[in-house]
Amino acid sequence: MNKGQQTRQMILEHAVNRASRLGLEGLSIGQLATELNLSKSGVFGHFRSKEDLQLQVLETVSQQFTESVIRPALKQARGVDRLRALFINWLNWAQAKNHERNGCPFMAAAMEFDDQEGPVREKLVAIQQQWIAILERTVSLGQEKGCFQQQLSAPQVVQEIYGLLLGFHLYQRLLRDPHAEQRTLNCFEDLLARLEAQGNAT
Amino acid sequence: MNKGQQTRQMILEHAVNRASRLGLEGLSIGQLATELNLSKSGVFGHFRSKEDLQLQVLETVSQQFTESVIRPALKQARGVDRLRALFINWLNWAQAKNHERNGCPFMAAAMEFDDQEGPVREKLVAIQQQWIAILERTVSLGQEKGCFQQQLSAPQVVQEIYGLLLGFHLYQRLLRDPHAEQRTLNCFEDLLARLEAQGNAT
Repeated sequence: MNKGQQTRQMILEHAVNRASRLGLEGLSIGQLATELNLSKSGVFGHFRSKEDLQLQVLETVSQQFTESVIRPALKQARGVDRLRALFINWLNWAQAKNHERNGCPFMAAAMEFDDQEGPVREKLVAIQQQWIAILERTVSLGQEKGCFQQQLSAPQVVQEIYGLLLGFHLYQRLLRDPHAEQRTLNCFEDLLARLEAQGNAT
Repeated sequence: MNKGQQTRQMILEHAVNRASRLGLEGLSIGQLATELNLSKSGVFGHFRSKEDLQLQVLETVSQQFTESVIRPALKQARGVDRLRALFINWLNWAQAKNHERNGCPFMAAAMEFDDQEGPVREKLVAIQQQWIAILERTVSLGQEKGCFQQQLSAPQVVQEIYGLLLGFHLYQRLLRDPHAEQRTLNCFEDLLARLEAQGNAT
């Protein structure tokens, strides 16, 4: 990585942390320059506009999500183990364990951009749809393998799982409820038990 | 209602709509004055500061929530009927049917203020805790009546219900998934069936 790439990477990491606290709208090229002791034109050399910066931040977070949540879970066997690994990794991601950021930047962005048309919203939706497709595929593969009940609707199951994560995020981060994580895990295990095919040993 | 009260009410209604699109941080006394063709000092006559305005907006939305969601549901019999009415009214509220606003202002505010300490966050948390207490009490009353299983944890059930609503909000408003509402209703009916005591006819 050359010096230019290092600077760009440093700006992006700072921007990701800032966006996780203040949202993507809270990003400002001038503010980043001040905080990182760079010239404004130096930052503009890496990002053409605030929108470009927002898109790059989403791309960076998406790569982090793939590395932290998706890739380790794909090592698990299809079916219950893989679905559980994806969910537990996602739960850890939303708590930002081992990260400087606060909470999940996607969730903050989802609320900010649900009413705002444009490339940032489109990229956010595409990232979420890819993630949902991975979860749905995990459920379908479990059905093919005979671990999960055949008559289940994978999109329905995944919307329910997404809800568990969002409920956790609100109870833990807004309400600071100390039981939020345990309840979420209980709900998820209950859901898994409902998914499992009768007489299946997995 | 005198003229001053009418003006205050008009400013608040406009501010609620604006906050539902742009968040509570998107409120600005100067902007409201311009949009409503009032003097800035005229608006300051009703709201001492941006924070005061944010608190009043939360109070207004809370009153609307009580009238739209809670009060009509309390007419239903304890147990399944009341819990279902609270949920369906909440689902309609989140879709802002019959309202000028977009989505649920509380959910937008939850993401904005989860990291920001102060009176606005405190008020938001208090409103959410009151609402959660009503849902938990509805579950407990259903248990006392014998409609719901005795061993259930009401806080666990309510966190799951809250997740269903948040999942719906994201799928419908960000992803614009046309099946979001039907899936949410399916999940909720499935949850009710799990809650119901065996051999109960309600």
